[in-house]
Amino acid sequence: MTSGDPPAADLGLLSPMRGAAEETGDVAVLRALLDAEVALVRAQAALGLAPAEAAEAVAAAARAGAFDLPGLVRRARSGGNPVIPLVEDLRAAAGPFGAFVHRGATSQDIVDTALMLVSYRALGPVLGDVERVVAALGRLAAEHRDTPMAARTLTQQAVPTTFGLKAAGWRKLAADALARLRTAREALPAQLGGAAGTLAAFHPEPPDSAAVQAGSAHTAPADEDVEGQARAETWAAGGAGRPDVGRPGEDVALRLVARFAGEVGLAEPILPWHVVRTPVADLGGALAFAAGALGKMAADVLVLSRTEIGELSEGVGGGSSSMPHKHNPVRSVMIAAAARQVPALAAVLYGSLAAEDERPSGAWHAEWQPLREALRLVAGAARDAVELVEDLRVHPERMRANLTLPGTLPGSTGSAGVLVDRALEEE
Amino acid sequence: MTSGDPPAADLGLLSPMRGAAEETGDVAVLRALLDAEVALVRAQAALGLAPAEAAEAVAAAARAGAFDLPGLVRRARSGGNPVIPLVEDLRAAAGPFGAFVHRGATSQDIVDTALMLVSYRALGPVLGDVERVVAALGRLAAEHRDTPMAARTLTQQAVPTTFGLKAAGWRKLAADALARLRTAREALPAQLGGAAGTLAAFHPEPPDSAAVQAGSAHTAPADEDVEGQARAETWAAGGAGRPDVGRPGEDVALRLVARFAGEVGLAEPILPWHVVRTPVADLGGALAFAAGALGKMAADVLVLSRTEIGELSEGVGGGSSSMPHKHNPVRSVMIAAAARQVPALAAVLYGSLAAEDERPSGAWHAEWQPLREALRLVAGAARDAVELVEDLRVHPERMRANLTLPGTLPGSTGSAGVLVDRALEEE
Amino acid sequence: MTSGDPPAADLGLLSPMRGAAEETGDVAVLRALLDAEVALVRAQAALGLAPAEAAEAVAAAARAGAFDLPGLVRRARSGGNPVIPLVEDLRAAAGPFGAFVHRGATSQDIVDTALMLVSYRALGPVLGDVERVVAALGRLAAEHRDTPMAARTLTQQAVPTTFGLKAAGWRKLAADALARLRTAREALPAQLGGAAGTLAAFHPEPPDSAAVQAGSAHTAPADEDVEGQARAETWAAGGAGRPDVGRPGEDVALRLVARFAGEVGLAEPILPWHVVRTPVADLGGALAFAAGALGKMAADVLVLSRTEIGELSEGVGGGSSSMPHKHNPVRSVMIAAAARQVPALAAVLYGSLAAEDERPSGAWHAEWQPLREALRLVAGAARDAVELVEDLRVHPERMRANLTLPGTLPGSTGSAGVLVDRALEEE
Amino acid sequence: MTSGDPPAADLGLLSPMRGAAEETGDVAVLRALLDAEVALVRAQAALGLAPAEAAEAVAAAARAGAFDLPGLVRRARSGGNPVIPLVEDLRAAAGPFGAFVHRGATSQDIVDTALMLVSYRALGPVLGDVERVVAALGRLAAEHRDTPMAARTLTQQAVPTTFGLKAAGWRKLAADALARLRTAREALPAQLGGAAGTLAAFHPEPPDSAAVQAGSAHTAPADEDVEGQARAETWAAGGAGRPDVGRPGEDVALRLVARFAGEVGLAEPILPWHVVRTPVADLGGALAFAAGALGKMAADVLVLSRTEIGELSEGVGGGSSSMPHKHNPVRSVMIAAAARQVPALAAVLYGSLAAEDERPSGAWHAEWQPLREALRLVAGAARDAVELVEDLRVHPERMRANLTLPGTLPGSTGSAGVLVDRALEEE
Repeated sequence: MTSGDPPAADLGLLSPMRGAAEETGDVAVLRALLDAEVALVRAQAALGLAPAEAAEAVAAAARAGAFDLPGLVRRARSGGNPVIPLVEDLRAAAGPFGAFVHRGATSQDIVDTALMLVSYRALGPVLGDVERVVAALGRLAAEHRDTPMAARTLTQQAVPTTFGLKAAGWRKLAADALARLRTAREALPAQLGGAAGTLAAFHPEPPDSAAVQAGSAHTAPADEDVEGQARAETWAAGGAGRPDVGRPGEDVALRLVARFAGEVGLAEPILPWHVVRTPVADLGGALAFAAGALGKMAADVLVLSRTEIGELSEGVGGGSSSMPHKHNPVRSVMIAAAARQVPALAAVLYGSLAAEDERPSGAWHAEWQPLREALRLVAGAARDAVELVEDLRVHPERMRANLTLPGTLPGSTGSAGVLVDRALEEE
Repeated sequence: MTSGDPPAADLGLLSPMRGAAEETGDVAVLRALLDAEVALVRAQAALGLAPAEAAEAVAAAARAGAFDLPGLVRRARSGGNPVIPLVEDLRAAAGPFGAFVHRGATSQDIVDTALMLVSYRALGPVLGDVERVVAALGRLAAEHRDTPMAARTLTQQAVPTTFGLKAAGWRKLAADALARLRTAREALPAQLGGAAGTLAAFHPEPPDSAAVQAGSAHTAPADEDVEGQARAETWAAGGAGRPDVGRPGEDVALRLVARFAGEVGLAEPILPWHVVRTPVADLGGALAFAAGALGKMAADVLVLSRTEIGELSEGVGGGSSSMPHKHNPVRSVMIAAAARQVPALAAVLYGSLAAEDERPSGAWHAEWQPLREALRLVAGAARDAVELVEDLRVHPERMRANLTLPGTLPGSTGSAGVLVDRALEEE
Repeated sequence: MTSGDPPAADLGLLSPMRGAAEETGDVAVLRALLDAEVALVRAQAALGLAPAEAAEAVAAAARAGAFDLPGLVRRARSGGNPVIPLVEDLRAAAGPFGAFVHRGATSQDIVDTALMLVSYRALGPVLGDVERVVAALGRLAAEHRDTPMAARTLTQQAVPTTFGLKAAGWRKLAADALARLRTAREALPAQLGGAAGTLAAFHPEPPDSAAVQAGSAHTAPADEDVEGQARAETWAAGGAGRPDVGRPGEDVALRLVARFAGEVGLAEPILPWHVVRTPVADLGGALAFAAGALGKMAADVLVLSRTEIGELSEGVGGGSSSMPHKHNPVRSVMIAAAARQVPALAAVLYGSLAAEDERPSGAWHAEWQPLREALRLVAGAARDAVELVEDLRVHPERMRANLTLPGTLPGSTGSAGVLVDRALEEE
Repeated sequence: MTSGDPPAADLGLLSPMRGAAEETGDVAVLRALLDAEVALVRAQAALGLAPAEAAEAVAAAARAGAFDLPGLVRRARSGGNPVIPLVEDLRAAAGPFGAFVHRGATSQDIVDTALMLVSYRALGPVLGDVERVVAALGRLAAEHRDTPMAARTLTQQAVPTTFGLKAAGWRKLAADALARLRTAREALPAQLGGAAGTLAAFHPEPPDSAAVQAGSAHTAPADEDVEGQARAETWAAGGAGRPDVGRPGEDVALRLVARFAGEVGLAEPILPWHVVRTPVADLGGALAFAAGALGKMAADVLVLSRTEIGELSEGVGGGSSSMPHKHNPVRSVMIAAAARQVPALAAVLYGSLAAEDERPSGAWHAEWQPLREALRLVAGAARDAVELVEDLRVHPERMRANLTLPGTLPGSTGSAGVLVDRALEEE
């Protein structure tokens, strides 16, 4: 059965509400990890901290190398970290320049940068989808600016409103989600700090002023690269052909961080943020917001497409081979299911802010999968929301008919139209 | 025993980590509910939708009235809402002008506005406290710019860092928390929409264009005030002495919203946000962020003040009458305890975004207490953080001594000093 | 305004869905803290570890003493713990026997025992309420064993079912909740361990075999009572009139634990459970289960009482003074709001299992308020469920009418009746 | 790069703390879905509701069929459910007997049964691992019954305890976890109810007594199989060669449920539990408990293996290629990371108890991935705990040395030894 599928793989059989499968899959993560390693050597080469040939060799190795994903997963277990075995393999693939791989870095530099890259890349299509949702909701709100329907409070019909006002509220939430996701995405930073976040191992030699005589006389340069860094000291110590590493007095490591961020296309951080987890917490919050914002729309469609209400229906709908009469609001169900999960994942991410030491004993590792899962759920919700909204069937006649039910108060729709106008202008 | 204390009261006996007790207590909530009711009549009077005497009378009644808080709690149960009984009492207290109390409003207008007021007021001192934390951490970071200490990763000593860099990281998080809390606070909006969020009942008469002939011929103006609104139709229908309600074509209800927001000192919303819960979700996120941001500092103090490490100690410390040798880092414990709770509360708030209908059947009510509790926990954490940071004892000699332990790598502190300088400049 | 109400008090103005206000209020907690202190002296007296007069004096002081609750709350802050100031006051009130108050105990012994007492007491009425719910649902299921109605899946009418089968499902969940709450309640243990959980300070003299010569020659008995324990050594050292402390070889401290548990009426623990938090986690799980179990019923009532469906309605309903046509399913809304909050609180409690050391630096304190809040929410949900179920209006004619809507499949109700029979027999 | 790995696959690159990869992977889920379908036909054949050849044919098709997993994932999206496309493929594979596939069932019958099967299978090794943890901890506790060490409260050394007592506490938690997981596993039920949970479509003909004349005269048997059920009426209507379907008066559908449960090896449910989610909520609670229980041990090892404390160390430890001095407690970090995630996942599962209708519009779908992820995290934590405990290095000399630090109180270890004895006897 299903020969060829890796038995340990989660391809999404239990996650029809997920999206961004390829952007967040292990292959994409591996790609991003390699991108980070390559960017590091490139940045070092650009600043004269590594030979240009090393950058080329490592980039070629990262591209061409046959990395054994299941093997990496297996080997990641002992150190609790996929970068340790990956660096081994990348070094082997880079041949004589292997020593320049991961030089000065700690594995968190690579994992964090990769997770930000994956997030950045996954969020691109998500933003596009949410933009489409905002646009489609704007059209719906304008079209139904004056379509009356019953407002419902605590499940009971109350007084009239308009479908336009309802759609304008959905649009406001989607626009708010868009703004929060955009802001969070633009702020996603590269990570580079080395073992202790001091950037010490990126210095060609230790600045004398800060040298720590740790209980003995030795003054060897710190080697903070925790996992798998090889020494390339001869070259780093300088010599002929070495490019300029900046004006005297300028901190070469800070220049390296800037260059590295540029290479990967992420924001430059003020500080290494190994335990200053603002980017992850903010992203978690934005994702929880987005899931909930789209979840509001789904919740309303689920109510209004009930058999007995029938004011809305999904365009496509979940088919049923033997109950063709049944037209399930599947897209809304998927969004609702996502909206139930993301806040809990965001809570884990917020909880990881309280991370002790220079690398915490659990809080950091606890971010990886929840962040990825939240991305997937929001990506799926955004994609489903596009399909939902662009193909939503509105039934004004049922809206009008329901307004005549016993137990419905007549009345005007007040400022509904003006509110719609204002909401559509505003953003 | 304890005669006089209401047996149902929660005064905080199990919450030493809470703050903002008075700003968020039931008396403050009651105050804010009354402020909202008064502001509504005042705004209506200013726009000529109610007589000036009504505003004065209601304001006086709200001030002088002896509101029975435990009784309101009891009576709130049947409708699931404290505004219903409160409006009854306020009307009674306002005597002949009672009919102008809560006119056109729905109880959610009042509860939401009150919760935003309570949040706004509670966050004032919190911002002040977090500012003090940022300032004190800036001083600590500068003072210890070059104080070496062991970096610790996964609980093990790794390579050197400086206490200044650690403090700069704490400061960055506190500054990020400050920014997020400030932004959330400034955005807190007033709520005014009436029963369906259409503002219909705030119109002196229904705009013809939007009138809904709900299955019959009657065209009476909608009376959307769901709970306890009295009719004051004769006056509202106009007549001699009635002030101008704006230029023709201008929506008086929107002007009322603006005026109402001004009266309570909150932001003017673009739309009624009964089910567009951006403000609450954003506030929840900011509070979870703040709790975690301060929690990071607490987590580090808890590690570094361990008996065997002893690099930091709290200035005051939790006493022990019979173990005077014991100096518990109680402020840090309190902050840590708060940081464990707020993310879960924020998850509830994010979950409430997915609120069906024009008032949801549970999601809205589920916000009230978690929002208040999150405010209290963050207020307590901020207060405790001030005490912690302003009185923190740093022991550089222990830091230096621990660096000589077997198993510690010597090395330079790299760019730590430059990073501190940059971080202190930046914000 | 509201003079006399303590401004910091939370009386429940924002928690109409809460119950057990008196059983869980600060007065009740204070009562339970005092009960624990009294039980300790009594147990010590019974085993001859304290004079009988001390037990009488402390019990009298605990009863008669005027404890200043707001003052205790204030004073609890510095040590992060209400027991520290309480013991001071109780000692003062006990006069010459004050030295026997809290002897050998740590404050966690008292707080944990008190929280278990509060939980035990609060759960009594809750169990009664859930029993009533189970019984009423049994009657409903039997009465409507064959009342056909539409089954709804993914919001759409599918095929017929019976209301009896639906009610039998609700009953099953309520019965499951009852079983879980009962089991958790019966297991609630007393806590007694002393500062380190070794019971050392409850021994009249240190057992030689386990004496720890901690780096020096001194062999003084450990004084592990962390907070506020006075020494009463002369008496404890034995002497005339001292009762028998058990057969040689029997551990007097273990006998004390058993006796103490008996005095407070809680289960005897196998081990001190300061950091073995099974009871709290289990209770949290049972409460989350109960909230969700009742929440299912509420979710169904909320759907089926919608204006357009009308198959159920709440007997009492939330009134509306000006929209008398509106009959809000307020009890269901309250239960639904509770069900949204308790899982998050339970997550905090489960999270506190991972508590480091012999007393953790945050995890324990983070349990206090979430546990209490979860108790209140479940108590409120149970009470509201009684009112909901005992007064539920079933409208079989609407059920039948809705079955004829276009889009409904005809069909038999299969084994629905037999399933109801079986479910009602089973439990 | 990584050619051959499906780009959408999550193999665990970001989850070194996960276990049960194969038992919970999509292949295993697919296997379980097929097992459920096969069991259904077999049970129907055993009761004479399908020909024996159909059972054989479907079983053979399920075994031999080449199911396209990524294709199923893709096709699952439109209906939000993997069973819909799977049934299509299985029917095709079963050839002439395809009509007997999924007969009478709804897709939730299959998904729920499969998830219970996956849980049952995944928990087998987990129980084995936790048993090993309990046993190893028993040995540790006995061996170190009298090994003195400092108790630490609120991070500060307090008074002495023994390592044996600490290990006995860990063991108690592990034993409690074992008991809860076992109970939950044994209770895992099969699911069979058909579209509405009435079992109607499993009846050869509609029982007259419960027939619903849904607004018209037609009395056709209900066809409740929502997705993809083919009709096989001729055969089912009886005829020559049809096996006996039970004594008159016996409900054949209930017998089918029992038989189906036996076929899959799961418990027989009293009621279809499509929206009576006790099994999932209980399992979620047990998993959260287990994660936290193991998390306590990890939290302690993380403290006690700190460089400055050094009382414990992990046997294997996370290596570091360039910092060979560093011996990271990686197993503990992995367990701690798992313990931070599972409570949030359990909160989602508890939240799904409040599931409206006969199949909810989000709550059910929201269970799938969190349940699977919780299983994986607990499986990983249990596996890591085995390695941690069986290979834990205890350093009594460091324990003794730390007891002499300034700030440590001397004293006896009280009843520690007796408590260990009792705890080891008890369970």
